[in-house]
Amino acid sequence: MIIIAGSCSVENEKQIISLAEKLKERKIEYIRASLFKPRTDPKAYQGIGYNGLYLLEMLRDMGMKPVCEVLSIEQAEKVKPYVSMFQVGTRNMYNYELLKFLGTLDKPVLLKRAFSGYVNEWLKSKEYITQMGNENVILCERGIRSFDNITRNVLDIGAIIYLKQNTNNIVIADPSHSMGNSDFIIPASKAAMAAGADGLIVEVHENPKLSKSDNFQTIDLIQFDHLLEEIGWNK
Amino acid sequence: MIIIAGSCSVENEKQIISLAEKLKERKIEYIRASLFKPRTDPKAYQGIGYNGLYLLEMLRDMGMKPVCEVLSIEQAEKVKPYVSMFQVGTRNMYNYELLKFLGTLDKPVLLKRAFSGYVNEWLKSKEYITQMGNENVILCERGIRSFDNITRNVLDIGAIIYLKQNTNNIVIADPSHSMGNSDFIIPASKAAMAAGADGLIVEVHENPKLSKSDNFQTIDLIQFDHLLEEIGWNK
Amino acid sequence: MIIIAGSCSVENEKQIISLAEKLKERKIEYIRASLFKPRTDPKAYQGIGYNGLYLLEMLRDMGMKPVCEVLSIEQAEKVKPYVSMFQVGTRNMYNYELLKFLGTLDKPVLLKRAFSGYVNEWLKSKEYITQMGNENVILCERGIRSFDNITRNVLDIGAIIYLKQNTNNIVIADPSHSMGNSDFIIPASKAAMAAGADGLIVEVHENPKLSKSDNFQTIDLIQFDHLLEEIGWNK
Amino acid sequence: MIIIAGSCSVENEKQIISLAEKLKERKIEYIRASLFKPRTDPKAYQGIGYNGLYLLEMLRDMGMKPVCEVLSIEQAEKVKPYVSMFQVGTRNMYNYELLKFLGTLDKPVLLKRAFSGYVNEWLKSKEYITQMGNENVILCERGIRSFDNITRNVLDIGAIIYLKQNTNNIVIADPSHSMGNSDFIIPASKAAMAAGADGLIVEVHENPKLSKSDNFQTIDLIQFDHLLEEIGWNK
Repeated sequence: MIIIAGSCSVENEKQIISLAEKLKERKIEYIRASLFKPRTDPKAYQGIGYNGLYLLEMLRDMGMKPVCEVLSIEQAEKVKPYVSMFQVGTRNMYNYELLKFLGTLDKPVLLKRAFSGYVNEWLKSKEYITQMGNENVILCERGIRSFDNITRNVLDIGAIIYLKQNTNNIVIADPSHSMGNSDFIIPASKAAMAAGADGLIVEVHENPKLSKSDNFQTIDLIQFDHLLEEIGWNK
Repeated sequence: MIIIAGSCSVENEKQIISLAEKLKERKIEYIRASLFKPRTDPKAYQGIGYNGLYLLEMLRDMGMKPVCEVLSIEQAEKVKPYVSMFQVGTRNMYNYELLKFLGTLDKPVLLKRAFSGYVNEWLKSKEYITQMGNENVILCERGIRSFDNITRNVLDIGAIIYLKQNTNNIVIADPSHSMGNSDFIIPASKAAMAAGADGLIVEVHENPKLSKSDNFQTIDLIQFDHLLEEIGWNK
Repeated sequence: MIIIAGSCSVENEKQIISLAEKLKERKIEYIRASLFKPRTDPKAYQGIGYNGLYLLEMLRDMGMKPVCEVLSIEQAEKVKPYVSMFQVGTRNMYNYELLKFLGTLDKPVLLKRAFSGYVNEWLKSKEYITQMGNENVILCERGIRSFDNITRNVLDIGAIIYLKQNTNNIVIADPSHSMGNSDFIIPASKAAMAAGADGLIVEVHENPKLSKSDNFQTIDLIQFDHLLEEIGWNK
Repeated sequence: MIIIAGSCSVENEKQIISLAEKLKERKIEYIRASLFKPRTDPKAYQGIGYNGLYLLEMLRDMGMKPVCEVLSIEQAEKVKPYVSMFQVGTRNMYNYELLKFLGTLDKPVLLKRAFSGYVNEWLKSKEYITQMGNENVILCERGIRSFDNITRNVLDIGAIIYLKQNTNNIVIADPSHSMGNSDFIIPASKAAMAAGADGLIVEVHENPKLSKSDNFQTIDLIQFDHLLEEIGWNK
């Protein structure tokens, strides 16, 4: 089981190192550690940027495995020495030049599904990576767009089932971005695991209200412990 | 836990009685027993019709509880003495005249969500029933329409979670119509239950290949036993 | 060119007769004249009901052709002597029992597309009517559900084009319910006509602010005159 | 009125120069001249690539204005001297690093809407360009994803109307990718213009059957002449 947990983005040294310690106590290795946030509004907070590179190094020194979203080839090049896994977000599933570049590196890539990406397109996007030599790709179902607004997106359980039954892919789910509501994270996570998901990527913050982004969908450590128990986490 | 199982529709005496016996052995009370099939194509098989009323009586004599879809007030009036639960299908969630009539009866109503019904509309459709006095309504999430075609519909796990956390409704899931693929029924059912669903309605046939409709999404008794075990059914 | 115009529903004698006179001056024959409003919320205004039957008679005496939505067989039976065209709304495209009944009558039926109805389903719903003998069906594209909220629905111009090129159907568009914004009615109407639509059904009220429902998407007579000029109406 | 016409991508010297001459005769300046094709399948034809740079130069020498899609900053840098307009395709509306880079250049950018992009997201993506100094952005509605398959995408006429009434943007439509059917191009184009679009981008090929991609949705010169006449093109 793969669990990737942590704040929406790296905020500052105190925040990320303290959180990393708490995750380590829970035997979580992979930590959300994005320096760059792709935000719809160019005026919104865009992440700590390259100033946070030393924090990724600190995380690695602690034995953690930082997972960092990259939005361009340049970013991928620069963060490469410091990360354990690259993340391609929903906005970049079709960014084929980025995918091809990541295919030349020797680190795992977490490939999220586009907002309304066909599963077939998603698998083809994976091929843009693997055809360059890097076979280490993890697919992440993060919810698709639909007409209703009771949840932020619609977690497509059927896509997880389809992929696990018909392909050999590793597939994890993102309950945070699919639900958009911290109260819904635990049941959504249990559903994803019951459907056959290999793990989760979940937004966790010691004090969600203080999170710089996505605070309404971020859970605290008490909820996270409950989640780990419910899905039978023992590493 | 509520389990409603059975063939897409009532086919003939031998088929439905034999299946009922098998369900009874598994302590399943509610049996899918529709006499009328709302089919997109008017030339497609439309169900056994009123000729099957005596079969509902036989099912009741066996101690089973037949669940029958009705498409009009007239059908509801005629089948009323023979059924234990009315089903309003996805096509009739907005059929307010039918809903109001069912609200005057004293039998439970299974209200499916429309193909692309907002959850709020669904709850309002329930009110069309309850405002007439009948409070006994079960909601059924059966999958919503979306752009992809890897599954027949998209099972909206988030809707189940939303309803269970924010309302007092009984909510079940229909893995058969959401997945449209018998191989996907078990994981989809487990996911729905993990999300908090109160039960399932599932298409089961002793020989799915011989089913008059929906045969690609119908499971056999071996798969059904596996399903019951996986979701911890002990009545 | 077919133009059906008028208020969302029949409000009272003064309102509907005054509006009918204004429409008559503009050589509009078909008037929206629904007595029953299918509303999501059972507590919302549901229309004047059978009390308005005499108003339909008055409209016919004036030489107008009332178009009335019906939600059930019973309503269809009762309004039949007074209407020139039945309307089946988006919520009832799959109400096959109603469609079959309308197929036995000798009056035209305006069949709206369901909220997320496939065009193929829509054509099959039409067959439920025509197979009973009534060939006089007009299809109405009224917008489909989608993810964005800049318009109430998405007017599917492609569906109009598809139907006009590949079938012999009469197809009109409903700019009012697709746009949900009175400012968008004229360009949307022009677009529909340019795509090949045979006409329009449009919400018009002498004083839209006083309309009992849909007032945000209803145009006044000045806008209506502008619309008629733009689409080249000369009856 | 802005018309951008031409083959899906630049195929070879003979094809593109011959087509350019035909367009020039029709007073069309802007020519589709993409060297890179973002294809779902990495094994599909990906365009002529940098080998075609000299062709862009030839087009410019003829007085044509080549419009070339770019998928990365590197491509933008290399084609910059040869193009008159950059195109950002539907797959890259959220490629913020690319958008920011194009914002530093002094050439117009054609920004297509994402497959299921909210109009608000689209306007924010434009801001990623304009905030860097380049105010010269043209929006292109190219159809959104939906549940039906009668057209390739759903041309969102309402989005054009919304943008023209509520913003000062230049908005054109892409009938080719929205319809996905050469028979539907003319009525779709007329509808878009009637809705208020400022122009069109359309796939035209002297022999559509020989087009290397998108041949089912590409029109020939006879159809193109008919289109120009229908929309009143006189430059």
